[in-house]
Amino acid sequence: MDFRCKFPSSLRVAGLMSGTSADGIDVAIVDISARRRTVIAYDTVPYSATVRKAVLGLCDPARARVDDVCHYNFLIGRLFADALVRTCREHRISLGSIDLIGSHGQTIYHIPAGRKQGKDRIRSTLQIGEPSVIAELTGITTVADFRPRDIACGGQGAPLVPYSDYVLFGHAKYSRALQNIGGISNVTYLPAAGSIGQILAFDCGPGNMVIDALVSMITNGRKHFDAGGAMAYRGQVSQPLLEKFLRHPFFKRSPPKTTGREMFGVAYSKQFYEFGINMGFGANDIVATATALTAQTIADAYRRFLPKMPDQVILCGGGAKNRCLVNMLAERLPECRLMTTDDFGISSDAMEAVSFAILAWATIHGICNNVPSATGASRAAVLGKIIPGSGGKRFHGT
Amino acid sequence: MDFRCKFPSSLRVAGLMSGTSADGIDVAIVDISARRRTVIAYDTVPYSATVRKAVLGLCDPARARVDDVCHYNFLIGRLFADALVRTCREHRISLGSIDLIGSHGQTIYHIPAGRKQGKDRIRSTLQIGEPSVIAELTGITTVADFRPRDIACGGQGAPLVPYSDYVLFGHAKYSRALQNIGGISNVTYLPAAGSIGQILAFDCGPGNMVIDALVSMITNGRKHFDAGGAMAYRGQVSQPLLEKFLRHPFFKRSPPKTTGREMFGVAYSKQFYEFGINMGFGANDIVATATALTAQTIADAYRRFLPKMPDQVILCGGGAKNRCLVNMLAERLPECRLMTTDDFGISSDAMEAVSFAILAWATIHGICNNVPSATGASRAAVLGKIIPGSGGKRFHGT
Repeated sequence: MDFRCKFPSSLRVAGLMSGTSADGIDVAIVDISARRRTVIAYDTVPYSATVRKAVLGLCDPARARVDDVCHYNFLIGRLFADALVRTCREHRISLGSIDLIGSHGQTIYHIPAGRKQGKDRIRSTLQIGEPSVIAELTGITTVADFRPRDIACGGQGAPLVPYSDYVLFGHAKYSRALQNIGGISNVTYLPAAGSIGQILAFDCGPGNMVIDALVSMITNGRKHFDAGGAMAYRGQVSQPLLEKFLRHPFFKRSPPKTTGREMFGVAYSKQFYEFGINMGFGANDIVATATALTAQTIADAYRRFLPKMPDQVILCGGGAKNRCLVNMLAERLPECRLMTTDDFGISSDAMEAVSFAILAWATIHGICNNVPSATGASRAAVLGKIIPGSGGKRFHGT
Repeated sequence: MDFRCKFPSSLRVAGLMSGTSADGIDVAIVDISARRRTVIAYDTVPYSATVRKAVLGLCDPARARVDDVCHYNFLIGRLFADALVRTCREHRISLGSIDLIGSHGQTIYHIPAGRKQGKDRIRSTLQIGEPSVIAELTGITTVADFRPRDIACGGQGAPLVPYSDYVLFGHAKYSRALQNIGGISNVTYLPAAGSIGQILAFDCGPGNMVIDALVSMITNGRKHFDAGGAMAYRGQVSQPLLEKFLRHPFFKRSPPKTTGREMFGVAYSKQFYEFGINMGFGANDIVATATALTAQTIADAYRRFLPKMPDQVILCGGGAKNRCLVNMLAERLPECRLMTTDDFGISSDAMEAVSFAILAWATIHGICNNVPSATGASRAAVLGKIIPGSGGKRFHGT
């Protein structure tokens, strides 16, 4: 029997999300109908230092115990509910006007490659932030835990964002690339008038990760990122340094592919810095070259792996605020029109939280919301677990 | 907005359950409508020795790590799905005929008293057996994770069985006591024509726990229980020994109350045995007296704590098969008619799994299914998380 819910098409949905850096809870409130999505509020509610430390500890098998997982699952659920309540209050939105919550939770472990168990290989993922607590404290029906179902379908449980990229930005006439530049840069390619099956999504390479690490090294930790691209603007790109680091095998590997801190983390950035210094370049030149590396690897990835160059490139993530990086990207993608999600009324910081609101809307309407071509799942499925809000009929009139 | 599902009233529902002893997975298949519930199959699929050992290890904070919790959550989900598939095959029931699954999962941690976090006290519980995996492997909509919502409502997350006791055995004319005699004995009292708010449910004291421990001691581990009450039948109840052990303060404490192995475990049974031997009694006399202790503490609990003596006492659990125990109980409850759940077509072993089928049916119909008077919850709520089965509309005709 097919699962079916009775929910109207137009809903006000809150998306709740905390990323692997465990800085805090992103909250987006979105009015969603079948045809329109309007972000009406966005906020980030930081974790306290104590909670952040505990959450990062939970991710470490050597330290994280079952009693802590049990406890923090309920605590984080409460903090997610509190973050929504606080965002509503600050933006003068009535909590009662929200029809649905989509919560990603907090990932504390992820074994997408699987662990052997007898003859089988079991793949798994673990998010905390108990959604029963969110539903009870807010009284709002909550959809949560999206990744496990994609894993159960044979996927990696990630990325989940391409679905909402498609919903928000899929266009009948223009082919588009949603280019997120966070620590890592990743793209969702949406062909004009394309179907979900035609979406391509993969990691391009380092986004801000190398730039941030270099700025931190050069300023002895006084700065953590190149605000607006100021340092890069003052430097000169070194072609030999750039070409040397463009030789990393990841860039030529065909998608689907993902990368992270283990490949482009501190060790890689130190190597970049030392080569730059030994070649005789100044600090700003090295930052400029790292910025060019991000721009060049994105442009190269498009030329290598996209079926055609996108008409429009829509930027989001912190890198969209680095004007030098954006200019370098524009130079390398002359055939594309560069925009940001802000041009469409969605703050580039809010994109992930918005995406969990959109995923929840699809789940409650019984619409498949994974992107098998992005996650590797063997089939399209309705992701998530639905936790009823405050209602409930009483048994036999009691 | 109230959560509402479109599900017909008559459904075939599978209940899946594994208890704290982690012996294996109980599977019950029940045809449920608003007025009738018919158990059409019941089975237990044991865990392998390896899995049982791993699950018991997961419950131990000193040994259980977050990566193991992540891994075994998915593995146990798969084993739950496999257990249902196997039960269907053995009973020649088509998997496709099952409309809904209710899964309790496997409890690995439970902090109902709460743990301090700043000024707050956070109460929590943790079950594994990833329901997204169950829904994906069977294609059947699955309701799971019932306990967290009751905890979120201020309850203990247990007992959950009184709801189905009420649904199955509530009667317009007869007041009834559902008397489960497992390791611990616990009762659900259902007044005639009573409402859910009038249910009383609490632990009476040791069920088979002391009898089993004594038999194990006396036979040097060759036997683990007194089959049919054979040893007790051959012995004589010692009134002084019985009276000495009836003095335990638990028996006089007012409900709500729960107990377990920490109170009536091996230490208590050893003391019982040594007192018996020192008083000069034989092995069978000691077993007979322990059997009388179970019967007497149940009868005493009724007289002390029930608003009136029940018209009918319906037995389930392993103790219902101990004929000597049942006779002793009958002697002490002359005003009650003694029956077993088997008299109503439900194997006394199947009761718990059946109960999770009934809980799932209520959840999918938006009916509150906790019993606040039993769990201590501050309100009635719809328990559980709903995971859609194999269906799902495709987005935009792709």
